[in-house]
Amino acid sequence: MENAEKGWKLINGGIAAPKGFYAAGVKAGIKAKDKYDVALIFSDVQAHAAGVYTRNLVKAHPLYLTQRHLENGLARAIVVNSGNANACVGEFGDKAAFSMAEVAGLYLAVPPEDVLVASTGVIGVEMPIDRVLNGIRVASSELLNDVVKGIRGQKETSDDGAHRAAQAIMTTDTKVKEYAYELPCSQGVIHLGAIAKGSGMIHPNMGTMLGFLTTDADIPSEDLQRILREAVDESFNMVTVDGDTSTNDMVLILANGASGITPSGEDRANFEKMVKSMCVRLAQDIARDGEGASKFMEVTVSGAKTKEDAQKIARSICGSSLVKTALFGEDANWGRIITAAGYAGAEFNPSLVDILLGDLVVAQTGKGVAFSEDKAKGILGFEDVHISLNLHIGKEHATAWGCDLTHEYVTINGSYRT
Amino acid sequence: MENAEKGWKLINGGIAAPKGFYAAGVKAGIKAKDKYDVALIFSDVQAHAAGVYTRNLVKAHPLYLTQRHLENGLARAIVVNSGNANACVGEFGDKAAFSMAEVAGLYLAVPPEDVLVASTGVIGVEMPIDRVLNGIRVASSELLNDVVKGIRGQKETSDDGAHRAAQAIMTTDTKVKEYAYELPCSQGVIHLGAIAKGSGMIHPNMGTMLGFLTTDADIPSEDLQRILREAVDESFNMVTVDGDTSTNDMVLILANGASGITPSGEDRANFEKMVKSMCVRLAQDIARDGEGASKFMEVTVSGAKTKEDAQKIARSICGSSLVKTALFGEDANWGRIITAAGYAGAEFNPSLVDILLGDLVVAQTGKGVAFSEDKAKGILGFEDVHISLNLHIGKEHATAWGCDLTHEYVTINGSYRT
Repeated sequence: MENAEKGWKLINGGIAAPKGFYAAGVKAGIKAKDKYDVALIFSDVQAHAAGVYTRNLVKAHPLYLTQRHLENGLARAIVVNSGNANACVGEFGDKAAFSMAEVAGLYLAVPPEDVLVASTGVIGVEMPIDRVLNGIRVASSELLNDVVKGIRGQKETSDDGAHRAAQAIMTTDTKVKEYAYELPCSQGVIHLGAIAKGSGMIHPNMGTMLGFLTTDADIPSEDLQRILREAVDESFNMVTVDGDTSTNDMVLILANGASGITPSGEDRANFEKMVKSMCVRLAQDIARDGEGASKFMEVTVSGAKTKEDAQKIARSICGSSLVKTALFGEDANWGRIITAAGYAGAEFNPSLVDILLGDLVVAQTGKGVAFSEDKAKGILGFEDVHISLNLHIGKEHATAWGCDLTHEYVTINGSYRT
Repeated sequence: MENAEKGWKLINGGIAAPKGFYAAGVKAGIKAKDKYDVALIFSDVQAHAAGVYTRNLVKAHPLYLTQRHLENGLARAIVVNSGNANACVGEFGDKAAFSMAEVAGLYLAVPPEDVLVASTGVIGVEMPIDRVLNGIRVASSELLNDVVKGIRGQKETSDDGAHRAAQAIMTTDTKVKEYAYELPCSQGVIHLGAIAKGSGMIHPNMGTMLGFLTTDADIPSEDLQRILREAVDESFNMVTVDGDTSTNDMVLILANGASGITPSGEDRANFEKMVKSMCVRLAQDIARDGEGASKFMEVTVSGAKTKEDAQKIARSICGSSLVKTALFGEDANWGRIITAAGYAGAEFNPSLVDILLGDLVVAQTGKGVAFSEDKAKGILGFEDVHISLNLHIGKEHATAWGCDLTHEYVTINGSYRT
């Protein structure tokens, strides 16, 4: 999703690629297996920060803490654990979330209010807080080691730690999701780094989705909040269905200004597009890595009266278990596609709708057309399948991402907790 | 679900158990295999009739016809085919639906306007109309044979035909869903017969759900409409999720008054309860027979502020793929239950909620309690699993029904069309 025309490009590294950011990931023994499960992200100067959170009525304990700590729009660090959601455990959970911020703050020498906390994993079970806090201590010293080496000029990046951090936020994800972009501006170069985890379910009731972004651009908190909200609405929110959210979903962005650049004019516009592009890239990765997924689905709805209608329909199709299983079975069952559009709660006229699989027209003006089953099989045989609908009643469009529903999905989710 | 106290009880037979009703089912060759696929239900006198239809924006062709034919609140016959939904095929579909009514009317000697039409099967493919119409002809003569024998006193019921009709409306259903009740009233006995099909998906995007009810009670059309609407809202609509509907869903009721009884007072109240009880019974059967289901789930939400909130939460839990797979895996993952409640769009306070599996308390005041995993395994090991939530903020309650999500589900839906 790098955009040569607009000027930003993919570079090595992840969350610690922007200047002044450091990261670490350690194995704290929270997960059953020998896996990374505590991540720490740190800015060596105060950063502006913004966040968006799950719309689920049931919110995990760290979300309340992070929202409070972000009230002033400032942050220095993010601490994350996987293996336990720290949700629905009562007072214990609030205390545990605060301890995580407190201990990270202590070791990184910042006030606990400057530490944001996120968790992902099993709901309703008290987290092994001693292990989590010990993990934070170890992660802090590894991270500070990078900081010291950086100051001494012995080490240029915290990329190894960042890569471990990317692994430490994973649950049932099979692939690490981390990227970094650089954007040349009139005053110099700014960077954007990011990691995310998703996988669980995607739709219809997404396992926790976490996303963290860092940039060395200087952007005020209120602007960051708007930029993040808009980017999330067209990316992470388009791999799930409105309202179908986990208790722990959270996307945070930190902008520490360490590049010394406050992008303005075209640079600022490009920066905003770059943030959205990054979120879309991560969202696609999440869909592609859906639990047990064997195929990736991109659904584009055009010709809608409103953007909301286009989004509703695209998400409804991506989320339909019947569409998902048909995709798994490589079955050109467009009837299930129009049915899912029909219950999306959006306005359209069924008798105007065109449906395409890849470039193959399978339905026109709401009814089936003769098409080559062989060609359809060919298109559905690919790992990436593009479905498009034109509603022919307006000019708005939207894209959603999803994956197929497989035997493997049932296996993974039939025995997640135990 | 017979209710000895209220007086109605289960009797043999199905849709043709009420006086003056006849039915037939034939193999017309619409389905790939040698299966019953055309059903005919007939009243030998004019009947009051009412219907409720899918809320999907995309409606199959027969739905428009049936709605028109029901405008006068009268009907004599219902003709149904399985194997093809007659949906999204343009003008062909409207003509096909009308032909079905016309041919059935011709052979049964009633105006086409008195014939209601329903279809279920694949969407977007023109139905093999010759086979369908031929099937209607054969079904008509079988049915008329029953009528003649009935008049001559050679045959008392059309139960064999009714049983074939019940089979002819099935698609991926594995079990016939037909029942008959009798209700002793002060003036004599009235009967209620019914058949239904569902199976496909249930949630999140139900395969076509069809239900047909007959009674020999005399009930005006407007009353029938209200009785049916209320019964459907607490039964068939509680095995699916609001808005997640197929193109072909339809429930019809015919009341021909052949018993000579117009139930009033307590009899009338009992009649209405009996209709609801019948719909609940069929709805439970549909959930139990969900595609690939190995377990049946009943979710009761109590202590809600409004009935709508209780319904939303109960349906959201029944529809959650994560709850469904946990049920399949016999995993007491109550975190998924409260998460599904949280995105239901209903009002509650997470920190007041109690959750029970069977009679085992797994969460209290919104947080996990220590419980015996063995006991939980035992409860989840049964074929029928009851989940209950008490929100503790009001007095309203609702029940929804669903099933688990299994490997078999994926297999069935990965290759339904081809």
